[in-house]
Amino acid sequence: MLVIGGPAANDVDRKLADRLGCRHVRAVSKLFPDGESYIRVPVDVSGEDLILVQSLFQPQDKHIFELLLLLETLKDLGARSITAVVPYMAYSRQDRRFLEGEAISVQVLLKHIWLAGASRLITVEIHKEEALRSFPGEAINARPYRHMAPVVQELARDPLVVAPDAGALARAAMLADCIGAEYDHLEKLRDRQTGKIRLRPKRLPVQGRDVVIVDDIVSTGGTVAEASKHIIAQGARKVIVAAAHLLLVGDALVKLKSAGVEAIVGTDTVPVPPGVKVVSSADVIMQYLPKCTV
Amino acid sequence: MLVIGGPAANDVDRKLADRLGCRHVRAVSKLFPDGESYIRVPVDVSGEDLILVQSLFQPQDKHIFELLLLLETLKDLGARSITAVVPYMAYSRQDRRFLEGEAISVQVLLKHIWLAGASRLITVEIHKEEALRSFPGEAINARPYRHMAPVVQELARDPLVVAPDAGALARAAMLADCIGAEYDHLEKLRDRQTGKIRLRPKRLPVQGRDVVIVDDIVSTGGTVAEASKHIIAQGARKVIVAAAHLLLVGDALVKLKSAGVEAIVGTDTVPVPPGVKVVSSADVIMQYLPKCTV
Repeated sequence: MLVIGGPAANDVDRKLADRLGCRHVRAVSKLFPDGESYIRVPVDVSGEDLILVQSLFQPQDKHIFELLLLLETLKDLGARSITAVVPYMAYSRQDRRFLEGEAISVQVLLKHIWLAGASRLITVEIHKEEALRSFPGEAINARPYRHMAPVVQELARDPLVVAPDAGALARAAMLADCIGAEYDHLEKLRDRQTGKIRLRPKRLPVQGRDVVIVDDIVSTGGTVAEASKHIIAQGARKVIVAAAHLLLVGDALVKLKSAGVEAIVGTDTVPVPPGVKVVSSADVIMQYLPKCTV
Repeated sequence: MLVIGGPAANDVDRKLADRLGCRHVRAVSKLFPDGESYIRVPVDVSGEDLILVQSLFQPQDKHIFELLLLLETLKDLGARSITAVVPYMAYSRQDRRFLEGEAISVQVLLKHIWLAGASRLITVEIHKEEALRSFPGEAINARPYRHMAPVVQELARDPLVVAPDAGALARAAMLADCIGAEYDHLEKLRDRQTGKIRLRPKRLPVQGRDVVIVDDIVSTGGTVAEASKHIIAQGARKVIVAAAHLLLVGDALVKLKSAGVEAIVGTDTVPVPPGVKVVSSADVIMQYLPKCTV
């Protein structure tokens, strides 16, 4: 077995190979002057069972096409099987037709990953696990909470775990279970026209307590910042944020800090700025892969 | 029949619909804050034969994924057939394995366009026509020279048509045939390490004459600029450039001007800067499509 890292593996490939005791190689990649990607597999992979690691953070579409190029090339070069490890699955929030005629983007993406040659897929904390049904092969959603728990426990004493909306409630329950804490949730109201987020006012038992806000993705930080302000206004002692995928678009980090967030815990499914506490998604994923024997 | 324009149709969709007398609609598209594309088809397409126009200029990978999203969505919404019109085919120069283990990118791209639902493909002046064999359905390479000819004739009197390398000789022959001129070619030597281009010195009968340099793609402009200098040094009166796809990456335009190029003729398969003489690829493509009857 051989672990191959794509251009957006974010070092998860190397960490995964280390933990599994497998051989590891990184695909050769570069950009042509006009912006096209170049991909080359620098080793013989014929007859091999492969683990291909490529995350799909920004620029998502470039990383998606690189993933398709890698899968097709590995298959073409005679790989016996390919497990695609996609730590961050792009387009996961476009998982149903909210308006007539919309692309169900994650469905298209998963289908083409399979068509390109991945017989098995492992991703980390996808927005909705049901979306994985569009992948015709075996698909695994690896949950990061057990590995995030010790880091969260070090930062927050006897915390209340809070989901910023009902959609994240199951995540809050999972993290709460790992750290033996209570959990609750707020309710998000999104203006379909402007995209602006409000929270329905709700009393939470946060007075003088530490609070951990849990979500899967922090993108612009709008939702989590609103939740933090709401919680601090009710007398919480400290707010920390725990989320698998810290996209932190634009000034998200500033927005979180000024909303009173004291610490952020995430994973390396996407590159994160310094200061964030990072758990490696390699630890989260490795349990679903066999170790290599020497 | 209905013509649908994708986000990178570059107005070829509207021009094509006008010329064919077909109904026309543009897909709704936007970007989410994290850079993901949003696609929606705003009309009922069930049972329809569709012409979907989406070019693949920079950012190529974004436009590729949008094309896959559109194809899959149109199919999912019940389209009877989809002809994909891709005026500029990205990745067309990565059409074989130059080094062991390389991705044959255009093969992967064409295969996934087909898998996504295009039963027929029309593109303009692809780098190597043989690449289209990877498309399992009917694939057409529309040549632009007949439509570029009148524009070239207006700019250059009794010209010699010159290919900057042997690979472009057939293109020079085609344009020369359309304008009733002679043609010849130079020979390009590329340093595989540095990528730098030199021309093998060659005497051409250009003294006091107008010369038209023909190529398929002008990317950084390096090749064409070298050819122009070489030709002007031999006493040519005027150099113009004719190429289907004017990518003009970075300072390519400046490079061409300072190499003595007086005018540039291209098409709208990619967006071009002001000053370039543009032939619409809709004119080049329309002959391969049926007209709509009212």
